[in-house]
Amino acid sequence: MHILVSNDDGYQAVGILALAEALRALARVTVVAPERDRSGASNSLTLEYPLRAMAVEEGRYRVEGTPTDCVHLALTGLLDEEPDMVVSGINAGANLGDDVIYSGTVAAAMEGRFLGLPAIAMSQTSFAPKHLGSSARVAAALIEKLRSDPLPSDTILNVNVPDLPWEEIKGFQATRLGRRHRAEPVIKAEDPRGRPIYWIGPAGLEEDAGPGTDFHAVANGYVSVTPIQVDLTRYQALDQVAGWVQGLS
Amino acid sequence: MHILVSNDDGYQAVGILALAEALRALARVTVVAPERDRSGASNSLTLEYPLRAMAVEEGRYRVEGTPTDCVHLALTGLLDEEPDMVVSGINAGANLGDDVIYSGTVAAAMEGRFLGLPAIAMSQTSFAPKHLGSSARVAAALIEKLRSDPLPSDTILNVNVPDLPWEEIKGFQATRLGRRHRAEPVIKAEDPRGRPIYWIGPAGLEEDAGPGTDFHAVANGYVSVTPIQVDLTRYQALDQVAGWVQGLS
Amino acid sequence: MHILVSNDDGYQAVGILALAEALRALARVTVVAPERDRSGASNSLTLEYPLRAMAVEEGRYRVEGTPTDCVHLALTGLLDEEPDMVVSGINAGANLGDDVIYSGTVAAAMEGRFLGLPAIAMSQTSFAPKHLGSSARVAAALIEKLRSDPLPSDTILNVNVPDLPWEEIKGFQATRLGRRHRAEPVIKAEDPRGRPIYWIGPAGLEEDAGPGTDFHAVANGYVSVTPIQVDLTRYQALDQVAGWVQGLS
Amino acid sequence: MHILVSNDDGYQAVGILALAEALRALARVTVVAPERDRSGASNSLTLEYPLRAMAVEEGRYRVEGTPTDCVHLALTGLLDEEPDMVVSGINAGANLGDDVIYSGTVAAAMEGRFLGLPAIAMSQTSFAPKHLGSSARVAAALIEKLRSDPLPSDTILNVNVPDLPWEEIKGFQATRLGRRHRAEPVIKAEDPRGRPIYWIGPAGLEEDAGPGTDFHAVANGYVSVTPIQVDLTRYQALDQVAGWVQGLS
Repeated sequence: MHILVSNDDGYQAVGILALAEALRALARVTVVAPERDRSGASNSLTLEYPLRAMAVEEGRYRVEGTPTDCVHLALTGLLDEEPDMVVSGINAGANLGDDVIYSGTVAAAMEGRFLGLPAIAMSQTSFAPKHLGSSARVAAALIEKLRSDPLPSDTILNVNVPDLPWEEIKGFQATRLGRRHRAEPVIKAEDPRGRPIYWIGPAGLEEDAGPGTDFHAVANGYVSVTPIQVDLTRYQALDQVAGWVQGLS
Repeated sequence: MHILVSNDDGYQAVGILALAEALRALARVTVVAPERDRSGASNSLTLEYPLRAMAVEEGRYRVEGTPTDCVHLALTGLLDEEPDMVVSGINAGANLGDDVIYSGTVAAAMEGRFLGLPAIAMSQTSFAPKHLGSSARVAAALIEKLRSDPLPSDTILNVNVPDLPWEEIKGFQATRLGRRHRAEPVIKAEDPRGRPIYWIGPAGLEEDAGPGTDFHAVANGYVSVTPIQVDLTRYQALDQVAGWVQGLS
Repeated sequence: MHILVSNDDGYQAVGILALAEALRALARVTVVAPERDRSGASNSLTLEYPLRAMAVEEGRYRVEGTPTDCVHLALTGLLDEEPDMVVSGINAGANLGDDVIYSGTVAAAMEGRFLGLPAIAMSQTSFAPKHLGSSARVAAALIEKLRSDPLPSDTILNVNVPDLPWEEIKGFQATRLGRRHRAEPVIKAEDPRGRPIYWIGPAGLEEDAGPGTDFHAVANGYVSVTPIQVDLTRYQALDQVAGWVQGLS
Repeated sequence: MHILVSNDDGYQAVGILALAEALRALARVTVVAPERDRSGASNSLTLEYPLRAMAVEEGRYRVEGTPTDCVHLALTGLLDEEPDMVVSGINAGANLGDDVIYSGTVAAAMEGRFLGLPAIAMSQTSFAPKHLGSSARVAAALIEKLRSDPLPSDTILNVNVPDLPWEEIKGFQATRLGRRHRAEPVIKAEDPRGRPIYWIGPAGLEEDAGPGTDFHAVANGYVSVTPIQVDLTRYQALDQVAGWVQGLS
């Protein structure tokens, strides 16, 4: 098995180092990750400029680009041998509920949707994780399980791990994404020359965070595993919209 | 009604000018759009740096940021009066199938999901559209219709309009997103100093483009209207994953 | 005569529009300027990425690059016909003393050093100039004078104009660059996530601003004209350094 | 003695590591350098956005900014104790003749002009230097010499070292900057979408490279030491320009 590891915190982040090391016990691992922190990059792709990829060492590349650029490049020509799956992370900070649409960690996994095994996005619920070993162990456990009991190859798993020692984690839960309230107001300030500047405010508080959600699982000490889809069609609204557009024709 | 108009081609693109003008006949319009072309930006949010917003004229702002930054800012503090809906576009080029996960046009609409009326992403199927009037007319028709016959407020409509004169457009179809094959290989080249560079290759060919898809609708001269969701949970896989993770606990 | 006009405030800045208009009365004018504000860019050249130049209208280009990129491109292949000189500005804000080593306005002029006529950098001493007409008139006067009484072609003139009505300007002075004290301390702050950020502080106060300097001329209502050199060798120190390095051999 | 070390190739470049190590034998060394390659940045200063500085380890910082930003920050508030001098490099590639106005290596040194000892810019004449030890030894020798036989504190030394083993270097020469011909034409190409792009061409060939120039010294196996000035006034043209502007008053 050949696993491509990427992230959005940059190729030198402690999370990706821990992840790559843990997976090397199970498979061949190639790391292709952004040169610097690209959190919040979502699925952005660099179309206007060429990318540069530099081999930092055998099997480890840094790319001046987004997480999506990294995985895209790795799967369409940078590597000699195609990986079997993509594992992204370990992100420093949770990716729960609405966060996933902004997340570079999840985006890197989504870009691996064409491969032979499900892609996995790994996040640990702390901006300064103390227990990366727990996530590393979760990642390894998921991959071992996939080997003996595979999931469909077009599945993407968004995994959030509480920042706890392994012994204190209560288990795994399959969850749906919760939902946040609208984001907090933008923070208006002035630069030293007196001109207005705006900082994006914090994410909104949890609105839908009850049992069954990813918020609930990690808050209660469980590893949250959410199946994610790439097809954004809202199928249950198709009939209603079909009726609605008829009035337009 | 107060409509926020944004896009990913920049505040001076012909598409956004045509859209804003058409909607001004129906509602108060405020434009908040990126300073420059940000195609492919997806839902990326600028968290590391402050944003600057500059009033170009009354009711028209340019922001040094992504499409998502623009709408986020407009809805969380930049504007005195909250808009009722977001319309994004008119993008120069289609956003069909897998394209939507990379699209800044669709992302701008998604960022308007908390408002009182459905957000709409408008794209015209040509990189150099000749018939922007058709999309402008479609946008106006959709909004008129929403007034008399509203859709649920959390709906997002991804609309693609063939680049044809209005008279040649055959009507509207409610569609699901099609799917592309994997992207074409990365294009490897050298910079003038002999160092390797990589250009992201073209999007993949259509794999799932039969009747019912957005690809099929526009290829046959119809306006494609696809309901999009922000909740990426793959609900139909929840049970399978629940069974699967049990083996891990 | 064919004049290339550039700046560092961007191709849409009021200063460059006023300058181009004034010079069109005297010569053929081509504008090649950055897409957006690039103040403080100094002589930076974009070597890692390709540049894009877009004709905004006949004889007016915007470039995604620095002021130096713009002039470099214009003189090495973008334009069909080589210009005879470069005029850069009108910058919104003075470029006096040490400022010139950071200035994109001066850098754009320096990049025109290979042409048949002296390059000119025009700055008006206010961040929101009220009397751009004065600078425009100064630029025209300098060029008329160059026609009848040329300076050596490798000369670069750094021109600063007080923000006053033409009638209140007292005349022209040839000046040397003054010198500032060290810059004010960096401004330490925190971003909304509590992480430290640093804003470059204001330029230092004037240390050497007596009669004969550019600071003194504009403070007293004169147009300051300073000849600038591109050869940074400190010739008067050559002998001392020669003696000094002998001890090393 | 406390030496600030910076560069434009990034804080992880082999050149800066070799330089810092060599100087640690002589003095306290603090490294403040750009996060990534910023070659060609010249003296550009980041005024529009705040900077972030991160301690990589004790006495070693990386900054998301230009070389000038790094030194500016270090001298105006980032460090507890002010350095006595700035040494920049070891750049991978020569900085000779006109190169210096574009060079981030030289700019970093210029930003140290307010300190108690001369600033030094170190470059080795190869893009992939094999003999960094030679430059490291030159830097150490220059600093030892400055201790016993100081130069005026506002001096800046631009030092270029042939990429040769120490034993093959013929000695030191005090030189003036040579001069290049105009740069080679821009390289016009197309991106994969058929749109024109432009790469800045190679620097021009040597025009003034005879005995006494920096070009000549390194081509003949000598270390070139050029005194550089920050005051760009062309004093020898002051009288001529004074006469010339009189006709304008």
